[in-house]
Amino acid sequence: MSRSPDVRIPSEAELNWLTRRAVAEIVPEAELVKALKSGKHLRIKMGFDPTKPVITLGWAVGLRKLRQFQDLGHTIVVIIGDWTARIGDPSLKSETRPMLSEEEVMQNSEAILDQFFRVLDRERTEIRRQTTWFDKFSLTDVVRLSARFTLAQMLERDDFSNRYQARLPIGVHELLYPLLQGYDSVAIESDVEFGGTDQKFNILVGRELQRGVGQPGVAGNGQAVLLVPLLIGLDGQKKMSQSLGNFIGINEPPSEMYGKLMSIPDSLIGHYFELLTDVPDEELDAVRESIEKRMANPMEHKKRLAREIVGYFHSREAAQTAEDAFVRTFSKREEPEAAREIPAPANGEFKLAAFLAQNGLAASTSEANRLIDAGAVEVNGQKATRKTDGLKPGDTIRVGKHRFARIAPRT
Amino acid sequence: MSRSPDVRIPSEAELNWLTRRAVAEIVPEAELVKALKSGKHLRIKMGFDPTKPVITLGWAVGLRKLRQFQDLGHTIVVIIGDWTARIGDPSLKSETRPMLSEEEVMQNSEAILDQFFRVLDRERTEIRRQTTWFDKFSLTDVVRLSARFTLAQMLERDDFSNRYQARLPIGVHELLYPLLQGYDSVAIESDVEFGGTDQKFNILVGRELQRGVGQPGVAGNGQAVLLVPLLIGLDGQKKMSQSLGNFIGINEPPSEMYGKLMSIPDSLIGHYFELLTDVPDEELDAVRESIEKRMANPMEHKKRLAREIVGYFHSREAAQTAEDAFVRTFSKREEPEAAREIPAPANGEFKLAAFLAQNGLAASTSEANRLIDAGAVEVNGQKATRKTDGLKPGDTIRVGKHRFARIAPRT
Repeated sequence: MSRSPDVRIPSEAELNWLTRRAVAEIVPEAELVKALKSGKHLRIKMGFDPTKPVITLGWAVGLRKLRQFQDLGHTIVVIIGDWTARIGDPSLKSETRPMLSEEEVMQNSEAILDQFFRVLDRERTEIRRQTTWFDKFSLTDVVRLSARFTLAQMLERDDFSNRYQARLPIGVHELLYPLLQGYDSVAIESDVEFGGTDQKFNILVGRELQRGVGQPGVAGNGQAVLLVPLLIGLDGQKKMSQSLGNFIGINEPPSEMYGKLMSIPDSLIGHYFELLTDVPDEELDAVRESIEKRMANPMEHKKRLAREIVGYFHSREAAQTAEDAFVRTFSKREEPEAAREIPAPANGEFKLAAFLAQNGLAASTSEANRLIDAGAVEVNGQKATRKTDGLKPGDTIRVGKHRFARIAPRT
Repeated sequence: MSRSPDVRIPSEAELNWLTRRAVAEIVPEAELVKALKSGKHLRIKMGFDPTKPVITLGWAVGLRKLRQFQDLGHTIVVIIGDWTARIGDPSLKSETRPMLSEEEVMQNSEAILDQFFRVLDRERTEIRRQTTWFDKFSLTDVVRLSARFTLAQMLERDDFSNRYQARLPIGVHELLYPLLQGYDSVAIESDVEFGGTDQKFNILVGRELQRGVGQPGVAGNGQAVLLVPLLIGLDGQKKMSQSLGNFIGINEPPSEMYGKLMSIPDSLIGHYFELLTDVPDEELDAVRESIEKRMANPMEHKKRLAREIVGYFHSREAAQTAEDAFVRTFSKREEPEAAREIPAPANGEFKLAAFLAQNGLAASTSEANRLIDAGAVEVNGQKATRKTDGLKPGDTIRVGKHRFARIAPRT
């Protein structure tokens, strides 16, 4: 391995942080460490699905890890899954209509990349589109690619084997998707692929395909696998995800981000400190012990956590302002000054739930309806119902404890 | 269904013959009968694999059935599986080398079509090449196609489920092949697809795909399925196939064909009469009873069978000549006059087994070696060994009881 002049070799302490903190698994670990010590320049692959434009803090765990690699001089190769987004899941759709138009895909991709660059270093990021290679993929290419794996190998993937055991349908095309994701690695000649622990199977497919065509990766055997833990969502139960509504978006304003972080169960405090902050391991242990043994009010740890995270994505000042507003609201139940302004609804048919979802006050129309029915939505301090009528400039909306908005004057 | 002026409506007796004799299964039968009675013109699909240029009597069973449809005015659409032949089985081959060159595929295809036209009516045959549609198939096409089936549906195919149960590998690409064969039906808009009973699954896939895109087939639900029984090979045990060596080629000379037919076990006589001759059902029953109850020497039935079949593929006279020669040889053990002439081997290294295989006197070099070791090969009346040296013009070769050849004078 030849040393690249742009790459800095990490100290033992840095190496330890890089490969242990907020890392679930590295395969093969010794070879990746050796490569980092040799000063070889690494190309680290990260793919994303541009179907929806929202990036959650679940992503931030990995983005922060990747930024550490960039700070040593390595390159992140971001793959826009535009081919996959365009085709969607054809077993659910009409035959010919693409799931997203090319324009929608590119708009979403730009929105997502903007969010990535809140963490990643733009200068050390290479952006590639899947369609570059898949638009010219022939039937022969598909058959040769899929001939490299057996059905039994594919059924080793947990979600396939679980569904197969449970007699749930698995579309034949679904078996192709891990192969296509794996082929992305061949197309960009990655040395390492990064993902959440649920991506291990797919990343190993890419490693195997690279091996088949003699691409070395970090140690002559195809790309290494770098897995980060999955972040638990605000509910304290499930993986953070947009579709479950238990998420914080990476570009939410400071007050929303702060409020949502203050809403997590105490059991998540240590988890979030570990995966989303640079608080050293010893302090982390102390926080965990304090919460476990009820040594201090967990609220104080949570405030520090929220300050750290909001400070990282916005600024120390923004974090302090959000905290001040939160404390004021939480202690005095007064309407916050920092209510977000949203445009007045258009004239004509008005549905409160749809309006909340469109303006980011609920994850979806159905979540909004649930919240309305649960009495968690107020308009001008009064509980709203599904029948609540059109809103006018100056009206205030409160959703749950932490989401506030005010209807903007018409322009 | 509109009546076509070129189509003749069969009588009840013809209809019975068409749908019962040498037919294993028709799906859906009532609808196909209705279509035949309506005088609608049918496009009947038959695909073939041009990997090897030999067509056996196993094929003749179906070809004869298809000729009956042609005689009523229907069209046979022959699909050259040139795309599949070119790619072969990529899991067994080096990454990039095609299994057969385009030229080899076309040479084999022409040889095969010549053999088909010993039975089929060239005027009512349409010839299509798979590459016409598959060379421009995109990755999107493949994914949409495979999204129409689930893994569980594919594993209903016997050979997949058997291999899966037995933990034998199934390449992911193998799951695509039935879908591609099915797509052929969509590409040519067939009304009926013909095949051996082992093709039922694949043909039903085509029916399902046509249904998905609204192609009517015979009864508004995609192509009908017409299955003929598999012909047992000369060994009386397994399906006739070139690779097992238990076959008669459709264009073998009269004496070879006759001799091989005389070598079949008595248990096959009724089976061959049924599938390869027009001997009426009542006579067929009489033959079966005679053999079962040993009412006459089965050899006489076999001779009639051999005359019928050789007469069909060559001529009544050729069949008689073959019989006369056979009787002479068989009874007097004299060398037949009709020995085939084969060219003298080239100078240089000579291997008898390879020479026999090259000249069609054995199915393969390894079969030839087995025959030599078993003492079943004679050169100039003397048992040959693996060390038997080069042959000169005028030398005679006998392989088993029925294969004779003479080395031709050098030209």
